[in-house]
Amino acid sequence: MTITLLPVTGLPEIAAGDDLATLIAQAIHLQDGDIVVITSKVVSKALGLGVLTHDRQALVLEQSTAVVAERATATGVTRIVASSSGPVMTGAGIDASNSEELLVLPPDPDAAADDLRTALQAATGVHLAVVLSDTSGRPWRAGLSDFALGSSGLQRLDDLRGLADTHGRDLAVTVRNLADEIASAADLVKGKIERVPVAVVRGSASLLTDEPQPSLVRTGPTDWFALGRHEAVRAALGVTPGSPDAEAVGLPAVGEEPVAERLQRAVRAAAHGQPPVAVQVDEQSLELAADDPVALGRVWARIEVALAGERLTCSAQQLGPQRVRITVRT
Amino acid sequence: MTITLLPVTGLPEIAAGDDLATLIAQAIHLQDGDIVVITSKVVSKALGLGVLTHDRQALVLEQSTAVVAERATATGVTRIVASSSGPVMTGAGIDASNSEELLVLPPDPDAAADDLRTALQAATGVHLAVVLSDTSGRPWRAGLSDFALGSSGLQRLDDLRGLADTHGRDLAVTVRNLADEIASAADLVKGKIERVPVAVVRGSASLLTDEPQPSLVRTGPTDWFALGRHEAVRAALGVTPGSPDAEAVGLPAVGEEPVAERLQRAVRAAAHGQPPVAVQVDEQSLELAADDPVALGRVWARIEVALAGERLTCSAQQLGPQRVRITVRT
Repeated sequence: MTITLLPVTGLPEIAAGDDLATLIAQAIHLQDGDIVVITSKVVSKALGLGVLTHDRQALVLEQSTAVVAERATATGVTRIVASSSGPVMTGAGIDASNSEELLVLPPDPDAAADDLRTALQAATGVHLAVVLSDTSGRPWRAGLSDFALGSSGLQRLDDLRGLADTHGRDLAVTVRNLADEIASAADLVKGKIERVPVAVVRGSASLLTDEPQPSLVRTGPTDWFALGRHEAVRAALGVTPGSPDAEAVGLPAVGEEPVAERLQRAVRAAAHGQPPVAVQVDEQSLELAADDPVALGRVWARIEVALAGERLTCSAQQLGPQRVRITVRT
Repeated sequence: MTITLLPVTGLPEIAAGDDLATLIAQAIHLQDGDIVVITSKVVSKALGLGVLTHDRQALVLEQSTAVVAERATATGVTRIVASSSGPVMTGAGIDASNSEELLVLPPDPDAAADDLRTALQAATGVHLAVVLSDTSGRPWRAGLSDFALGSSGLQRLDDLRGLADTHGRDLAVTVRNLADEIASAADLVKGKIERVPVAVVRGSASLLTDEPQPSLVRTGPTDWFALGRHEAVRAALGVTPGSPDAEAVGLPAVGEEPVAERLQRAVRAAAHGQPPVAVQVDEQSLELAADDPVALGRVWARIEVALAGERLTCSAQQLGPQRVRITVRT
């Protein structure tokens, strides 16, 4: 099996209401078994999903069901969220459309892929599949790569469980995400700058199917990374990522921060929702004082947890039944 | 630019000491500008990296620099680790070689790619690049996809920062991970079952380079997902993932667990490193008693944090200066 990746060149700039199927069918001679991979941004444009707003951060929260991680940047806040369209993405996949508008993702990417597939098949008379691709970072890896935001007519997973390899060993955990691999492959011939938002993957007709396909989004209890390292600790202290509380406590910055700043943020997170305890914060240490020793113990433990969440280690000394001193080790 | 993905068929089963370059050069006519993508497992086999052991879990810890997340399974423990070869992977990328051995990753995947490239170029006289591919899950996505464990002679990232798109907008954060996309593309024509561990990506000669390339592994402070959600909270309580302490406290299971089990694990995590506090644990509640009210407050707060790490919400009631009752809300 040889696969060819073909860029679809010569497409005009897409605007709301444009007939993508007709434009693509005119730009390339499609064949039976082709997989048409289209950048979701172009689909959003054609669907008229531009939003007139200057408040990108509010739009990100509006277009998401949960915040996974968030950092303060020089120009605002960057959030990785579970987008309401499905996937976990930075900024809910919102993109600049033109100087006036922000583009949101299709609310149902699979339905958008279905629609385009139906129209393309009607326009060309060939049997094909459609993938809506988008671009995302991947934890632990540098750079961005493409993935399948939605698809239609494609076998998304190759489930080899229960089969055996050439040595008769069980391929117990081998479920391939074909859709994401196809989106990544297509990106190699698409272009951010050269206006090539569509590519065709030719030669893998065996992957076409009309069977219902599973979701490629993993969320819920089986998602081991539902919160970032920092956010998991804050959430355990009652500071929910994406909430006004989280902003009040203060978001970590994307870059390096002085120890004193991280220490102060840890104290604010620890104090969240607690009865007032007197805390005197210095550069690398703090002193806690409380009439109620139970409250003292509570806030002491919470500060230690919050400091660990800031990747700061500390030592503590109880100075009496109502006083504790905590020092950050450097 | 059209790219062709070619499977390399007809390779024999690889054994320690085999000359991969000669075998590949005999199996396919390589051309200038080709990118040869080879499954790292085959490279490990040729390098004789089989280890005779029945203790897979010990080998995983030995082959890693940090544990990112860990879960108890029916047959042992599954760990996502920062492998000593570089990438974050489940089980440190260790694979079954045959019934007797486990195969570890090449300790320096880029050096292994360099060696294979040099040998392939010498054997064929053509200018090419080499990618060692491996397979990994990706947080938030179903299934597994291929990525570039190592490479030689390839431009790994396409840094578009500072360039402008067709509308003159700055492509501020667009750094493409080309190497991973190439590995994913090549997987579409490789096969787990049909013994096709090598593929050639033809048509992207412009990506060949002899310049030094950046690492594709993101670790350290810029890695927002250095610990899983559960592990981040445990680590903040002093229970380090991958440590004997973590096993003693108990690892969460991959599947569903009764509330009582999660509650008990939370109590053990909270008690870790603390002076003894009497805790009576029931199905969905517990009572704390301590002579020292500061210690009572500390363990109370730590249990609340640990319960949140178990995705359990609770309410608490202080019954006196030395007693607290905590009830899990369901």
